[in-house]
Amino acid sequence: MTPFRNKPLDYRSAGVDIDAADDAKNRLAKLVQSTMTAGSRGAFGGFGGMFRVPDRYRAPLLVASADGVGTKIKIAIEADRHDTIGHCLVNHCTNDILVQGAVPLYFLDYVAFGKLEPAVVEGVVAGVAAGCRENLCALIGGETAEMPGVYTPPDYDLAGFITGIVEEDQVLSSVRVEEGDVLVALASDGLHTNGYSLARRIISDRLNLGVHDLFPDADGASVADVMLKVHRSYLTCLQPLLGSIHAMAHITGGGLPGNLNRALPHTLDAVVDTSTWTIPSVFRVLAEAGQVSPMEMFRAFNMGVGMVVITARENVSALISRAAACSIDAWELGSVEKGSGEVQLRGLGA
Amino acid sequence: MTPFRNKPLDYRSAGVDIDAADDAKNRLAKLVQSTMTAGSRGAFGGFGGMFRVPDRYRAPLLVASADGVGTKIKIAIEADRHDTIGHCLVNHCTNDILVQGAVPLYFLDYVAFGKLEPAVVEGVVAGVAAGCRENLCALIGGETAEMPGVYTPPDYDLAGFITGIVEEDQVLSSVRVEEGDVLVALASDGLHTNGYSLARRIISDRLNLGVHDLFPDADGASVADVMLKVHRSYLTCLQPLLGSIHAMAHITGGGLPGNLNRALPHTLDAVVDTSTWTIPSVFRVLAEAGQVSPMEMFRAFNMGVGMVVITARENVSALISRAAACSIDAWELGSVEKGSGEVQLRGLGA
Repeated sequence: MTPFRNKPLDYRSAGVDIDAADDAKNRLAKLVQSTMTAGSRGAFGGFGGMFRVPDRYRAPLLVASADGVGTKIKIAIEADRHDTIGHCLVNHCTNDILVQGAVPLYFLDYVAFGKLEPAVVEGVVAGVAAGCRENLCALIGGETAEMPGVYTPPDYDLAGFITGIVEEDQVLSSVRVEEGDVLVALASDGLHTNGYSLARRIISDRLNLGVHDLFPDADGASVADVMLKVHRSYLTCLQPLLGSIHAMAHITGGGLPGNLNRALPHTLDAVVDTSTWTIPSVFRVLAEAGQVSPMEMFRAFNMGVGMVVITARENVSALISRAAACSIDAWELGSVEKGSGEVQLRGLGA
Repeated sequence: MTPFRNKPLDYRSAGVDIDAADDAKNRLAKLVQSTMTAGSRGAFGGFGGMFRVPDRYRAPLLVASADGVGTKIKIAIEADRHDTIGHCLVNHCTNDILVQGAVPLYFLDYVAFGKLEPAVVEGVVAGVAAGCRENLCALIGGETAEMPGVYTPPDYDLAGFITGIVEEDQVLSSVRVEEGDVLVALASDGLHTNGYSLARRIISDRLNLGVHDLFPDADGASVADVMLKVHRSYLTCLQPLLGSIHAMAHITGGGLPGNLNRALPHTLDAVVDTSTWTIPSVFRVLAEAGQVSPMEMFRAFNMGVGMVVITARENVSALISRAAACSIDAWELGSVEKGSGEVQLRGLGA
């Protein structure tokens, strides 16, 4: 059986004949093949990727999300390092559906160039495939577009689309959140995929640094090293605990105040104690160099918090232990109190 | 019930508060809401769009596809007419999964700008929503990205992702195709979404025409009118006949030779009689002005054939009648003969 049989035809635009594939195309095929899971179906051939809905769900709800990597892609382009942003994208999309209690089934990507660069496509797909393997998500399709006049080489853009699944009565959301629940933070690993337009401006205009220069206070890491860190996926760590979680917030554009509110009912506030953790160095460097106010920083960046889990008090220690076992720092960030669906950031300077 | 309750939060980037929405945001919300179907689930809120897998499938197979509109988007930008390309995109994606026998469930879009233009976003989403309504496909999510430095205003790009469903034992593919089967063509309506880089070059460099000029032999239609015609969806027309169809080919990039081969087993050829239809005027104008050979034309453009259906002889007249009832020209294009998986174009000049 060759589940991948006709995939490259779907996968990397029409006209690619996998039977006559050269080395580069074979490498691409192998990358895609490395992500196949039990539900993948490819033997039929054709245009669209196929995936069998798992049998074990009583009332399966599909959860889907579309996203890009924002201007983080500009760092990849400037550094000519293309094999991590695909991983960021898959992890970002995975977290976006995880907050509803869903686990990934499959992923598709869209990469558009001014002039198609096969080596860059391969790098991007390698990153996407790595993210798919990490999250047990089949890469069942994709599109590579060449659009002269829209993108100026070497610029390109990358978008991704994930579909996951959750039992309808196990969807996580604000309706499960109760007064007295605890907010538990899981640490981010760098900027993830948000705040890059601001960060890039500060780095180039205020710090006068190029992507290959050393980033301040970063133990010898370059700007590219720091800015291209892979967006962390919380799936593997949190999946075993989903039954004890009330709601989650993936901290992306808008930061804590712009995302945690989405996990709150209209009658409760999330009270965040900003003294419970040390803001990672990268954010302190950016704030200082850019003279950015704390509130603006918390709106633009994750500030060290990649995911917030809302759960009952009795589950907190198990959650923090589980995170430690996954090598992810976790801590009590605050609590859920009577209110009006607002996020309060306590202890934030002016 | 407000199935759309939190959708705009997901839908048009974080930080949009629908409760405080202004008129433009309300219009966007209404557009999205206009596409909701029985499977749509939004009341839970959160980050990803949700869709209930229909109960009526014994072995549901999800079929997914990602695509863009290529450089057709440049015509939309030059003509400042943004409300049709989204429709093209949904119809394109719908046809891509229809060839496997799948019907759409849901759609997500990705629109990326150098500088976000709300009126353009609204136009694009209006087109996407129109396509979703036509194909009974719920628009359950989307992402609007602002990426200064990647896109130069007024340029932007649009990608879309569709998920549909088919019973696993009813997937259409080359394995069903038999010697003696008939190729039935369904007419395209213009270029659909392929060949635009070549067409644009011919129009600007050889014909010296701008988007608002009259297109030759087009009954007073402008270049923009001709070039922005909406990519036709064949779903509504063909869905009632899916049980009698062996395989289909959606004629996109690569034309008849580059797509019809994907519907063939390795032991059979598709023999296309190019004298069975009159090539539409738009292709004749482009061929003549660009001095493009017939073979190159058939590789770059659909040449008037938007979809090829492969079916047994006894089903042909019912199929052609059904197409006529849908106001789509259809005709016997050729036949399936012993061979090696090749597409033969008979009667093509040099």
